[in-house]
Amino acid sequence: MAKAESEHEGPVVERMLLFTDAVVAIAITLLALELPVPKGRTNAELWHAALEARPEYKAFLISFVVIWAHWSAHRKVFRGLRALDRNLSALNGLWLLMVVLIPFATKIIAGDGAFQLRFGFYALIETVTSLLFLLMAWHVRRAGLAAEGTPPERFTESMLRSGAIAACFAVSIPVAFAGEWAYLCW
Amino acid sequence: MAKAESEHEGPVVERMLLFTDAVVAIAITLLALELPVPKGRTNAELWHAALEARPEYKAFLISFVVIWAHWSAHRKVFRGLRALDRNLSALNGLWLLMVVLIPFATKIIAGDGAFQLRFGFYALIETVTSLLFLLMAWHVRRAGLAAEGTPPERFTESMLRSGAIAACFAVSIPVAFAGEWAYLCW
Amino acid sequence: MAKAESEHEGPVVERMLLFTDAVVAIAITLLALELPVPKGRTNAELWHAALEARPEYKAFLISFVVIWAHWSAHRKVFRGLRALDRNLSALNGLWLLMVVLIPFATKIIAGDGAFQLRFGFYALIETVTSLLFLLMAWHVRRAGLAAEGTPPERFTESMLRSGAIAACFAVSIPVAFAGEWAYLCW
Amino acid sequence: MAKAESEHEGPVVERMLLFTDAVVAIAITLLALELPVPKGRTNAELWHAALEARPEYKAFLISFVVIWAHWSAHRKVFRGLRALDRNLSALNGLWLLMVVLIPFATKIIAGDGAFQLRFGFYALIETVTSLLFLLMAWHVRRAGLAAEGTPPERFTESMLRSGAIAACFAVSIPVAFAGEWAYLCW
Repeated sequence: MAKAESEHEGPVVERMLLFTDAVVAIAITLLALELPVPKGRTNAELWHAALEARPEYKAFLISFVVIWAHWSAHRKVFRGLRALDRNLSALNGLWLLMVVLIPFATKIIAGDGAFQLRFGFYALIETVTSLLFLLMAWHVRRAGLAAEGTPPERFTESMLRSGAIAACFAVSIPVAFAGEWAYLCW
Repeated sequence: MAKAESEHEGPVVERMLLFTDAVVAIAITLLALELPVPKGRTNAELWHAALEARPEYKAFLISFVVIWAHWSAHRKVFRGLRALDRNLSALNGLWLLMVVLIPFATKIIAGDGAFQLRFGFYALIETVTSLLFLLMAWHVRRAGLAAEGTPPERFTESMLRSGAIAACFAVSIPVAFAGEWAYLCW
Repeated sequence: MAKAESEHEGPVVERMLLFTDAVVAIAITLLALELPVPKGRTNAELWHAALEARPEYKAFLISFVVIWAHWSAHRKVFRGLRALDRNLSALNGLWLLMVVLIPFATKIIAGDGAFQLRFGFYALIETVTSLLFLLMAWHVRRAGLAAEGTPPERFTESMLRSGAIAACFAVSIPVAFAGEWAYLCW
Repeated sequence: MAKAESEHEGPVVERMLLFTDAVVAIAITLLALELPVPKGRTNAELWHAALEARPEYKAFLISFVVIWAHWSAHRKVFRGLRALDRNLSALNGLWLLMVVLIPFATKIIAGDGAFQLRFGFYALIETVTSLLFLLMAWHVRRAGLAAEGTPPERFTESMLRSGAIAACFAVSIPVAFAGEWAYLCW
C-alpha cells in the first residue's frame, strides 16, 4: 500500500481512465436493461401497466442522473492527472465497485415495501461513492499527482461538492426511518 | 448552467467521446441480447416460431439502423470539436439518456396490441433524440466549440437532417393514432 | 452512397475503430452471460447437469473463437487505415450487425432438434460476416484508404482467408441438410 | 503460430489493450448484474432474504477483487509494450476467454451443495488465468516486446506473483475435496 512505486507514464493514466469510463458506461446502460416492460393489449391496459411501474422508472431516472454526476465529477478531477500511484488506483477500484453496485441498488430501491431498508441501502451506496471520490480528490492534491498548472480551486470545489452530496445522502438515511419524504433530501 | 467555465483541453473532449461511444456501443449490442430465441424440435416448428417473432426482429433491425444513424451523425458533428462547455456536456448526457432508452422502447414497440401507445412512445424517444442532437449541433456552432477550419455547412447539413428526422418521427405519432401504416413515415 | 465526401482525419478513423472494438468486446463477453448454469446439490448431480449442457458450452467456445478470429482479421486490415469513406463506414456497420447477431445465433445453434435450420442460420451469419469483411478489405485497397507503405499482400492474404472461411461456412449449409457431421467442415 | 510476422506499430498494441480493457470492464460489471435481488415487504423480511443470499454476495466480492487484480497485473506488464506478435495475441485471447468465464464461475460457486465441484471449477479457472498471465509475462520478456528501458524486475515480480496466485488456487482444489475451509487458501 506504500505509494513509493508511483507510475509516471501518461499511457498508464489513460488506460485507467479508459477502463473507468468503460465500467461507468456499462453500469449506466445496464440501468435501462432492467426496466420493467409493461404489458397490455389495449392502450388503456398498457398505460395502466406503465403507471404501476412508476417506482422503477423514477429509480432509473434518479440513478442515471446520479451516475452521470459521479462520472462528471471524476472527469473534472482526473483531467490533467499526470501520474497514478497505488493508493489512487485502489481508491478508484473501490469507487468502481460502488458504481457497479448502483444498478443493483436501483433494483432494491424500486421494490415494494420495506422502505427504510431499501432507501437506506441506496443512500449508503451513494454516500460511500461520494466519500471515496472525496478521498481520491484529496489524495490527488496531496500526493501532487495533478499536472502542473492545474488550479487548486478545482479540487477544493470538487471536494466541497462531493462532501455535500455525501452528507446529504447520509442525512437522508435516518430521515428515511422517520418517514417516506426522505426523497426530498435529494 | 453558465457556459463560463469552458473546458479547453483535448483530453476532456476525447474522454467525453469515448464515454459516448461506449454507451452507444453497449446500447446497440444489448438490442440483440433481447431477441426472442425461437423454440422448436423440428425444422418446421422452429421456422414457425421464428416467423411468429417477426415483430421483434423487425423492431431490432429498425433500432439497430436508427442507433447507427444517430451515432454517425454524432461522429460527424463532434469531429474536430476542440472544446466542451457545460451546456454541451449536459445536452450530450440527455442525448445518451435517450439512446439508452432505445432498447427499452424497442421492447415496447415489439409488444402485442396497444399499437398507438407503443408506436407513439418509440417515435417520441426518437423525436427527442433528434431534437437534442439538433440542439447540440446548433450549440457547437453558436458557442464556437468547433476547431477552426471546420466548414459551417457540416453543421447546417446535420441540423437539417436531424430536424427532418425529428419532424418525420413527430408526424408519425398522430398518424399512428389514425392507423397502422404509420411505419410508412419512416 | 457516393464516396465523394471522404473523411480524412485520423481521429475519425480512431473513433470508428474504438466503437467497433467496444461492440465486438460486448458481443464476445455477452456470449458467456448466456451460458446455462448447471444445478445440482451433489457433485454427481452437478456433473451430470453440466454434461447435459454440453451443446451450449461447445457453441460458446466455437463462437468465442469465431468472434476473436473476425476481430483479429479486422485488426489486421484496419491498422494503418488513414481515411474512412461512406462505403467503408456502411460496410463496417453491416459487419457489426452480423457480429452483434452471433450471440443470438449461438443460442439458436445450441438448441435441441431442428438441426438443419439451426446450423444453417449460424453458418449463414458467419458466411455473411466473412463476405462483408472481404468487401471491406477489397474496398480499402481499391479506394486507397490505407496509409502509404502498407504492403498490398496484407490485403490479399486477408481477403483469401476471409473468402476461404466464407466458402467453408457456405458449403457447410447444404452439408447440414445431408447429415449432422457438417461440424467437420469447420 | 510462428512469431515471425510481428506487428510493430504502437496503434496495434493500443487497440489490443483497448479491446482487453473493454472485455474486462464488461466482465467486472456483469458480475453485479447477476446479483440476486432480495424480496420482502417488511424491513425484517428483506433483511432475512438478503442474509440468505450471502453466498452470492460473497462470491461477487471475491470475483470483483480477483478480476481487478488480474487486470492490475495486466496493466503493469503491458505498459510500455512496444510490439505484439502472434503468440502474445493468442495468449491474450485465451486469457480473455478465462476472464469472460469468471462471471459464469461466480454463478457456479455461489450455488448450493456440490461444494467440491463448484469450488474446484472456480479455482481451476483462476489457476489457468494466472498461468496464462505468467506465460504472457514470460513471453514479453523473452521475445523482447517491451519498450527499451523497462526494468526487467517488473516482469520477474509479476511472474512471481502470478505463479504464487496460480499455485495457491491450484492447491486449494484438492483441499476443497477434503473440506469446506478451502476458502482459507485465498
